[in-house]
Amino acid sequence: MTETLIELEKEFLDYVKKMQAYNEALGLIYWDLRTGAPKNGVDQRAEVIGMLSSEMFHMSTSEEMAAYIASLSGNNELSEITLKTLEECKKAYDRNKKIPAKEFQEYVVLQSKAESVWEVAREKSDFSMFLPYLEKIISYQKKFINYWGYEGNKYNTLLDMYEPGITVDILDQVFSEVRNAIIPLVQKISESPNKPKTSFLFETFPKDKQKEFSLKILEQMGYDFDSGRLDETVHPFATGLNPGDVRVTTRYDENDFRTAVFGTIHEGGHALYEQNISKDLIGTPLCSGTSMGIHESQSLFYENIVGRDYSFWKHNYSILQDYTDGQFEGIEIDDFYNAINESKPSFIRIEADMLTYPLHIIIRYEIEKAIFNDEIEVKDLPQIWNDKYEEYLGIRPNNDAEGILQDVHWSGGSFGYFPSYALGYMYAAQFKHKMVEELPNFDELLASGNLKPIQEWLTKNIHQYGKMKKPLEILHDVTGEGLNAKYLIEYLTNKYTKVYNL
Amino acid sequence: MTETLIELEKEFLDYVKKMQAYNEALGLIYWDLRTGAPKNGVDQRAEVIGMLSSEMFHMSTSEEMAAYIASLSGNNELSEITLKTLEECKKAYDRNKKIPAKEFQEYVVLQSKAESVWEVAREKSDFSMFLPYLEKIISYQKKFINYWGYEGNKYNTLLDMYEPGITVDILDQVFSEVRNAIIPLVQKISESPNKPKTSFLFETFPKDKQKEFSLKILEQMGYDFDSGRLDETVHPFATGLNPGDVRVTTRYDENDFRTAVFGTIHEGGHALYEQNISKDLIGTPLCSGTSMGIHESQSLFYENIVGRDYSFWKHNYSILQDYTDGQFEGIEIDDFYNAINESKPSFIRIEADMLTYPLHIIIRYEIEKAIFNDEIEVKDLPQIWNDKYEEYLGIRPNNDAEGILQDVHWSGGSFGYFPSYALGYMYAAQFKHKMVEELPNFDELLASGNLKPIQEWLTKNIHQYGKMKKPLEILHDVTGEGLNAKYLIEYLTNKYTKVYNL
Repeated sequence: MTETLIELEKEFLDYVKKMQAYNEALGLIYWDLRTGAPKNGVDQRAEVIGMLSSEMFHMSTSEEMAAYIASLSGNNELSEITLKTLEECKKAYDRNKKIPAKEFQEYVVLQSKAESVWEVAREKSDFSMFLPYLEKIISYQKKFINYWGYEGNKYNTLLDMYEPGITVDILDQVFSEVRNAIIPLVQKISESPNKPKTSFLFETFPKDKQKEFSLKILEQMGYDFDSGRLDETVHPFATGLNPGDVRVTTRYDENDFRTAVFGTIHEGGHALYEQNISKDLIGTPLCSGTSMGIHESQSLFYENIVGRDYSFWKHNYSILQDYTDGQFEGIEIDDFYNAINESKPSFIRIEADMLTYPLHIIIRYEIEKAIFNDEIEVKDLPQIWNDKYEEYLGIRPNNDAEGILQDVHWSGGSFGYFPSYALGYMYAAQFKHKMVEELPNFDELLASGNLKPIQEWLTKNIHQYGKMKKPLEILHDVTGEGLNAKYLIEYLTNKYTKVYNL
Repeated sequence: MTETLIELEKEFLDYVKKMQAYNEALGLIYWDLRTGAPKNGVDQRAEVIGMLSSEMFHMSTSEEMAAYIASLSGNNELSEITLKTLEECKKAYDRNKKIPAKEFQEYVVLQSKAESVWEVAREKSDFSMFLPYLEKIISYQKKFINYWGYEGNKYNTLLDMYEPGITVDILDQVFSEVRNAIIPLVQKISESPNKPKTSFLFETFPKDKQKEFSLKILEQMGYDFDSGRLDETVHPFATGLNPGDVRVTTRYDENDFRTAVFGTIHEGGHALYEQNISKDLIGTPLCSGTSMGIHESQSLFYENIVGRDYSFWKHNYSILQDYTDGQFEGIEIDDFYNAINESKPSFIRIEADMLTYPLHIIIRYEIEKAIFNDEIEVKDLPQIWNDKYEEYLGIRPNNDAEGILQDVHWSGGSFGYFPSYALGYMYAAQFKHKMVEELPNFDELLASGNLKPIQEWLTKNIHQYGKMKKPLEILHDVTGEGLNAKYLIEYLTNKYTKVYNL
């Protein structure tokens, strides 16, 4: 390399590092807002968010950035990390350059206000409070799609933000396979006389004991507490500020320990991904999960494929009992296992069982696709939502809080995000299928509480790469094929056929 | 105003607002680092701090800033807030611009090394380890004073950073008055046969109960929990991120409830100041306490003049008892009051009682002044320190850890800071004297737990102004005179004469 090139690469990497620093500061601000920032400071904090975001926005679209992209992109003398970083920067540049800076700043301020309004609206179960904010958010997003352009379907442009490579065509295909497999299964279950007993799940389980058990499971999963912490929030999440600081939150329901336990395992799965990204990627935009779908594959893998597995509870059931005051006395592990795998149509996505869960996602996908293809109006959403729940799940929400207002995503403008949850589930089943080929003692590992080889497999095949590989590239490198819904369908069919003795 | 002027003022205020946004983000990062950030993320977080700080430094010394200062300063058509903001910016510009960037960078690196070395040196109680670093820090500070220039005394330049308007001449005067009054009082107390019993203070008082009581007192003080929160840290502090988000922390010692209770009241006093600054100042550098000394006057006012007052405990003693498991059974309020006002010479400043405390400060002041006037050598500091403790307090430290190495300040180059603590105490007594003229029922207010009129008085006279008024300007506007040590001396003399029945 010439000295000029070495110099320029260094300059570019410093520039990118500064952007990442702002991003980390923003991540901390968001974490803080959700875990306990005093409410009277929120308006001013929104200004800070606006300022930092717009600085990042500015840097991502500056003439300097344009010059780096122009002079460095594709130069094979550069390191792979630099080249992939340039790709990410170019993608962001192309996206951001097309939105007028002022419009973006207004949008960011709107976002953070909309989230507070959504919180109150949900509490009061009043969609009309949230409606004007949601309409504004959607109209910004529609404008943005026009700025960005699209291929095939306007909604593809949104999907591409969360799951590059995934399109409406692919989703229409896999989602229809999944829907066609699940709906009859749900039907059969509802007609089956074999219903697991579940009443013992809902006895009082004190919050502090739930927390202790949750911490124990996080530890078993390999979550590093020197690189993270567990807090309490209404809406649980995981956030990777850097690989040495990856925080999870959970929610406690003293009459249903499953909320905290499976919630923690889920967020812990996300966190393990972020904790195990190669340290070489720190300070670049590659130091993060490659996509929302691959991220969700990790959380769902742990929550469901590990956390709701029979072998997992062989090891952990007696440990769980140690934290209770006799709640599970006289309850056999088989009954416990069936109970935590109960499937029953319900209103709230994040409380849904793991069979009906994909239907919640498919409903959101269909609604979002319709919104951005101008097929429905925002004010009609509660009605449309409720109709779909009735059609797919056979139940109709009684109010906005248990219907249209339940999720935070739209208040932050995250359209195109929901499909990732179902994609993640499909990826997870597909990874699992490969993993047991390479770790044929998978069940015994779970039964002995030794999750280390599992985590190592995930780090080796997925986690370490961060954004160095695209989602479908990882899927292909690991499994040798493209997205295939059959693994999830097989997994769900086998599992629920046994649980319900169908 | 011409349109160009209006435009330019707006541009300048936006520029300043951005700096304040970075400052708020930094404030949150520091709060987070101290309240529970995972240790493996700290190195990367330091990069974020470096990045944001250097951006702020850059903005404070940029050509843009120079141009704003040159074209707007002193223009009477501008609002008072803009003019005062310009003054603050000019002061920072002049300070920052005069140090060669390379030298400042070296100094920052040295600072952070010196602090880690100090930590180890204190642990090993070995001043010789810290000596070369302290010498370097001092020699940089001396160079900086030469760059900055000085009036009258070199040390004035350092004082001006923390307490604008206060000079060596003023301090020599008031500190000698205070010293001459306190030393004989301390003497008399040590010879008095009337020693308060204190053993009942040190019974086990569970942390969660201490916390509940501390929250109760914060509430009584008028601390707004919608604009703040209470957390736990090794070193308690208060931090104002904006007036709607002012956080306090405290430390719990289960064998000495005074640590948490008086610590919380102290930090609560700082917090009330920041919570009650006029919202008009948000987004400017004026939105903060005007000086370290005035800040400390508010914390010491609450901690000592309110929190260690007899009337205050008339209301709160029985409430405190409700949180204990019989700890104070059979202890009369008079005995309790005398116990919490015990005075006894001790080595560690932050554990000192409120009578001997100013002597700890005066010792540091005399040493710092001598250092910057080249009257003593750094290597002789332990000896000088110990001699002064013996002379003023009648006790001689047994080692460096309980002597010269106890405070972190010098390792960070914070010379000129210590006097603020004693100035704050003098301001507090002087404000109190005025306050009782206007609120003659001061004692009854305390005795009825109604601190609201007191807080309103402080907001009206001090808090609302932020940095709109300089410390001595506030003092003069409120009391009609300059700094006068007699109020503190009267206060201490009256109080301890009664407690010790002298």
